[in-house]
Amino acid sequence: MTNNHDVVRVGVLGCGNVGAALVQLIAAQSAAIATRTGLELRVTRVAVRNLARERDVHLADGVLTRDARSVVDDPDIDVVVEVIGGIEPARELILAALDNKKPVVTANKELLANIGTELYAAADASGVDLLFEAAVAGGIPLIRPLRESLRGEPIRRVMGIVNGTTNYILTKMTEDGASYADALAEAQSLGFAERDPTADVEGFDAGAKAAIIATIAFGSRVVAGDVYHEGISAITAADIAVAARLGYVIKLLAICERVDGEIAVRVHPAMVPLAHPLASVRDSYNAVFVEGGAVGSLMFYGRGAGGMPTASAVLGDVIDAALNQRKGAHGSMGTFARIPIRPIDETTAEYQVSFDVVDRPGVLHAVTGAFARHDVSIRAAEQEGLGDDARLVFITHEARESDLQATLRDLRDLDVVKRVGGLLRVIGS
Amino acid sequence: MTNNHDVVRVGVLGCGNVGAALVQLIAAQSAAIATRTGLELRVTRVAVRNLARERDVHLADGVLTRDARSVVDDPDIDVVVEVIGGIEPARELILAALDNKKPVVTANKELLANIGTELYAAADASGVDLLFEAAVAGGIPLIRPLRESLRGEPIRRVMGIVNGTTNYILTKMTEDGASYADALAEAQSLGFAERDPTADVEGFDAGAKAAIIATIAFGSRVVAGDVYHEGISAITAADIAVAARLGYVIKLLAICERVDGEIAVRVHPAMVPLAHPLASVRDSYNAVFVEGGAVGSLMFYGRGAGGMPTASAVLGDVIDAALNQRKGAHGSMGTFARIPIRPIDETTAEYQVSFDVVDRPGVLHAVTGAFARHDVSIRAAEQEGLGDDARLVFITHEARESDLQATLRDLRDLDVVKRVGGLLRVIGS
Repeated sequence: MTNNHDVVRVGVLGCGNVGAALVQLIAAQSAAIATRTGLELRVTRVAVRNLARERDVHLADGVLTRDARSVVDDPDIDVVVEVIGGIEPARELILAALDNKKPVVTANKELLANIGTELYAAADASGVDLLFEAAVAGGIPLIRPLRESLRGEPIRRVMGIVNGTTNYILTKMTEDGASYADALAEAQSLGFAERDPTADVEGFDAGAKAAIIATIAFGSRVVAGDVYHEGISAITAADIAVAARLGYVIKLLAICERVDGEIAVRVHPAMVPLAHPLASVRDSYNAVFVEGGAVGSLMFYGRGAGGMPTASAVLGDVIDAALNQRKGAHGSMGTFARIPIRPIDETTAEYQVSFDVVDRPGVLHAVTGAFARHDVSIRAAEQEGLGDDARLVFITHEARESDLQATLRDLRDLDVVKRVGGLLRVIGS
Repeated sequence: MTNNHDVVRVGVLGCGNVGAALVQLIAAQSAAIATRTGLELRVTRVAVRNLARERDVHLADGVLTRDARSVVDDPDIDVVVEVIGGIEPARELILAALDNKKPVVTANKELLANIGTELYAAADASGVDLLFEAAVAGGIPLIRPLRESLRGEPIRRVMGIVNGTTNYILTKMTEDGASYADALAEAQSLGFAERDPTADVEGFDAGAKAAIIATIAFGSRVVAGDVYHEGISAITAADIAVAARLGYVIKLLAICERVDGEIAVRVHPAMVPLAHPLASVRDSYNAVFVEGGAVGSLMFYGRGAGGMPTASAVLGDVIDAALNQRKGAHGSMGTFARIPIRPIDETTAEYQVSFDVVDRPGVLHAVTGAFARHDVSIRAAEQEGLGDDARLVFITHEARESDLQATLRDLRDLDVVKRVGGLLRVIGS
């Protein structure tokens, strides 16, 4: 490599899956990047917890250190990459780096979903970049289009498949007729799901990403605790089969929308019409569907996780931060409003409700009464099975969540209803 | 609106579909944009050819002018938007604006596909932005992700459905069994196709967009004349039916790829496997599928045309250009290599070939001989019809275009072959 290029010294905090992939990617791409941008990227410091651990990367002597703080304080480091994850020490290190006027690139969704706006303000105060394309939907360029391309666009709703593990499980259940337990076990054996899958399957991971997306899309502070979430562990093969028969596929969606001056943010399994672009997002792929006022519908699709795709997003941000730094510029995050969060009880949706009933005269009259009492109007009804196996599936017109929940309580109290099964929200087209 | 905001005076060249939508969109969104970015956008000059024409926009007295040059020379104009289209006077006006150190936003694909690198160099020389998100795939954020997010990514191939008219026609043929002529007539009556549809249906429009995409994705100069193109006017209902039976859907694709140190760029109808994300892009929607080395596969989906979606992309660029201008920065285009263009003859693909034959002993032996002589290996064969209606459909393994064309010439010379029908290239997964 010639010496005409501007050398950018990169300090990396953490050398797990993403950190190691980033080191490899920079080594492989640095010549091409230099030709294109005039920047020569060099990873000169890498902070790790355990120096002795075997790593699949080649680093010169003296690059590895156990002292992360020394990396962010090193005056020779131009750009800091944080891929440790979790709240501390990541928070403290990022704030210190920003305070030292170093741009920071992070993939830390947990941190951003909890104290993102605090970090954005710290970056703006120091006049440096804080970039985090990799924190949501891995390698998919989403944050930059939302922050920059769509800055003038009145965004109404963002719906995303932002968790690859659950999308893999739901795809196996849909295409192979697998049970939830079998699909989860397969995902675990392939490394797509953790041994303790709670964060993925109960919607915590998607909820954190929803908070970040809502904050950027609507320019208003939304934190993980604002996000209502349900997971997929209660979805049964029967739910999937009924959905398919009605022309839907079940997906775990993160939904962020503006409703009458408020913001509603939630994660739950949803019935997606087969013709909707999100319906064909299979396996562990992610996709985010954006509905704007002028631009219409957009979708961004790709790999939401994995070392290399995530490292690719980090690398794009590192180059951007370094170029901005050379120009003395940075991409301001601007100020964030505090638009009220609409509680889940006050949101509306179409619902699919299924419940097991006894097979005797008057049953339909009794159950429809529960819906009518709470102003929940029925759009379609289907009866499956006979006798002891009779099962009713209703799809409602748009109804209010609190009314639907009151209906479910009434149904549970009826002695003709043996069991109230899954509740699924239907996504309109 | 308060006076705390930085006023950005926008001069618009052209007030057709996109120009008028932009004026409306800025009027509707300026308060929200000011809150978010601190910029107050004002359209202060609009150049048109005909002052007397009725327009669906409200402009203050003195804003409209017939003198486009006066707009780019006006010292009060901060950002110039060019939505006239065509080569001249657009070229001259853009160069004059850049020379006056004014950032330019353009939606002009024809101009960029022919002299894009000249314009990019002029912008870099003046140290101002030349932004053109709207020139390819309308409202879909594609150019910015390619230029910025994927700057460090080794992109191998970009395949796009970048013409809404032809995608609408092919969708009608696929889903309703319509003939090409009927689907075209319907598209014309709905305003999706021009009265003279040549630019769309013969692949010229997609070819221009392919040249721009290839230039940005590979950092190398590619012009419209480098792009091999075939249109969809020869596609028959029978071709669509055979494709469907074999598990494919026919799409007009713009394909840009790196092959052994060269760049191959072409537009042609292609058989896309049903499970491929591009297969489910229906109606007049566009989508661009990007295959990278580290990031894996990405897809960007949305409205590729229309006044409002295109104006949304222009507006995002106007805000970006104005913010950069305030910081004294600009997004450098960098330098462009001149990587050799691989001629279509030297590219490889899997092909579907169909031809009508007489029904007599030895026919299969004769036709397979033509394939064997040119080293084209057959992966699947199907015979339709009997007697006078016998028709053979072959799908080949990957073969070289020149070998395939030589095979077709031999087939035409065989007296057992009555007619060689369509040639379709198959997209691998």
